Amino acid sequence: MDTRPKTIYLPDTMVNWPWPRTINPHYEDVKAEVDASFRDFKALSPKSQEAFDKCDFGATYPAYQHWLIPTHQEEYTDMENEAVTKERVGIVLDALHNPHKIRPEDECILGEIARQFWARAIQSASLPSQRHFLETFDEYLNSVVVEALDREQGRRRSLDDYIKLRCATVGLKPSLTILEMGMDLPDEVFYHPIIMDLTNCITELIFIDNDMTSYSKEQAAGNEFHNLISIVMLELDLDSGSAMAWAAHYHTEVQKRFIDGLAKVPSWGPSVDVLVKEYLNGAANWVRASHSWGFESQRYFGTMGPKIRQTRLVPLLPGPDRKAM
Amino acid sequence: MDTRPKTIYLPDTMVNWPWPRTINPHYEDVKAEVDASFRDFKALSPKSQEAFDKCDFGATYPAYQHWLIPTHQEEYTDMENEAVTKERVGIVLDALHNPHKIRPEDECILGEIARQFWARAIQSASLPSQRHFLETFDEYLNSVVVEALDREQGRRRSLDDYIKLRCATVGLKPSLTILEMGMDLPDEVFYHPIIMDLTNCITELIFIDNDMTSYSKEQAAGNEFHNLISIVMLELDLDSGSAMAWAAHYHTEVQKRFIDGLAKVPSWGPSVDVLVKEYLNGAANWVRASHSWGFESQRYFGTMGPKIRQTRLVPLLPGPDRKAM
Repeated sequence: MDTRPKTIYLPDTMVNWPWPRTINPHYEDVKAEVDASFRDFKALSPKSQEAFDKCDFGATYPAYQHWLIPTHQEEYTDMENEAVTKERVGIVLDALHNPHKIRPEDECILGEIARQFWARAIQSASLPSQRHFLETFDEYLNSVVVEALDREQGRRRSLDDYIKLRCATVGLKPSLTILEMGMDLPDEVFYHPIIMDLTNCITELIFIDNDMTSYSKEQAAGNEFHNLISIVMLELDLDSGSAMAWAAHYHTEVQKRFIDGLAKVPSWGPSVDVLVKEYLNGAANWVRASHSWGFESQRYFGTMGPKIRQTRLVPLLPGPDRKAM
Repeated sequence: MDTRPKTIYLPDTMVNWPWPRTINPHYEDVKAEVDASFRDFKALSPKSQEAFDKCDFGATYPAYQHWLIPTHQEEYTDMENEAVTKERVGIVLDALHNPHKIRPEDECILGEIARQFWARAIQSASLPSQRHFLETFDEYLNSVVVEALDREQGRRRSLDDYIKLRCATVGLKPSLTILEMGMDLPDEVFYHPIIMDLTNCITELIFIDNDMTSYSKEQAAGNEFHNLISIVMLELDLDSGSAMAWAAHYHTEVQKRFIDGLAKVPSWGPSVDVLVKEYLNGAANWVRASHSWGFESQRYFGTMGPKIRQTRLVPLLPGPDRKAM
């Protein structure tokens, strides 16, 4: 008989985050247009499409279409082995680097989605933002291949190793480039150590929240070696609630690192500083958006999101983890 | 084989509490004097005396001698049945109400300790503080009897019921009266609903922290039905780490209630207001003192307190709880 507790307490990591929840003023218009265009692709199985519709990315994300690529990628690769994942990653990268080349008819639809997305994006995106996107998206896709190999081999990473990999698989860095698509953000800003550390903080905050929110679903699916909570449980010999609290504390420390870092951002003159401010403000807003989305979409908690946001009590779904422990 | 995790994460509840840790300037002098006088009583078995010495109450508590009564009471009653506890409570109450009456020779030493303590206290304590002490100490002692009966009957209280009882058994209200021993704090202040709620907040904050800190020790001793963490685990079907996080959140909410309440304290004129401020400041300081004492004494974590304060990782001692769950 399984006597493990069936509920887990999800600490609220965002009580003191200074950026409040807001809805993008373009949400309604953009959502309708993008939903329709993606449905036309018939890229997802009916079941995946239904799950995808429930995600309602537009409700809380500042960037909509942009985010679809990593998520489609996830829907396509999350349960695949390394060989399949590698092949699909190759298709997407080829499409992004050749946005005007017609895709082969029998190719996985991801290629055509990526091609259309990028052909459209480069019409308006600034040149630096294009370079930054291709560079960080490449890193993201390669990390997805590593994750697939880990899964295939049942590899369990150390906490430090996992955090390094997860900072890539969360796919946040390429997403952030939408914030600079309408501006010429100089490379000396983008690659400045203080700016890099600030975007690293944002990446960490978002993956910590995402792993906390998705833990119940992921352990039930047996995907526990790519989740911070499971890794912390194993490495520190903690129960799931303790690992959640550990993660929440880690989140608090990264928040502090971000807030402290903001005060250290140098000046590049008034015309650049205004861009830096907008970029960092958008990045900070992303943390709030991602956190809100975890409860307001139905991806992790079905229709129980709003209730769980209030009670913090998450039903622990039965799964392989429950039998193994 | 026991496969439960062997470590538990103890969230830091006091990061934002505005009152910092300080050492009472009279600590060294008072500690030596009081230690010696209590050792003369030979009130504790050698083992209890050793445990007691390790507690080092003077290091962090603003009140030293005052606190000894509840703690001696605890050493004497924590593992006793209702009948024995009731008898000892009767002895102590009789001694407090008759501080000049010689105690019977064959009586439990608690009577003489209480008598000497009170005979000394009333030489300098203000009259209102004496009344408040006797009233709140009576409530405390009676709650200890109820706790003993619960233990004898293996009774498990609901969360709400437990919190009500624990607010009495923590023994904080009578201890707080030391803050008013040197002042005439009017009854209209002491019994004012806002002041009462503020001292209730202090009581809750201290018992929450104490139950979090003592959980590992208490579950190992099989005393789990008089600990918030165990009660929350059972009532909400949580693991111990989740119950800790739940308790930490409860702590945060009570802190907010206290801080908000401070802004609502009415004025009774400048000469009284200065007393009210001193009293409430002392009460708020008590929360910090009690929290620090949990790590700096050896009562709960032996010599590991400072390390645990830093890592937040508490070894979960094996005990009856581990076998039963």
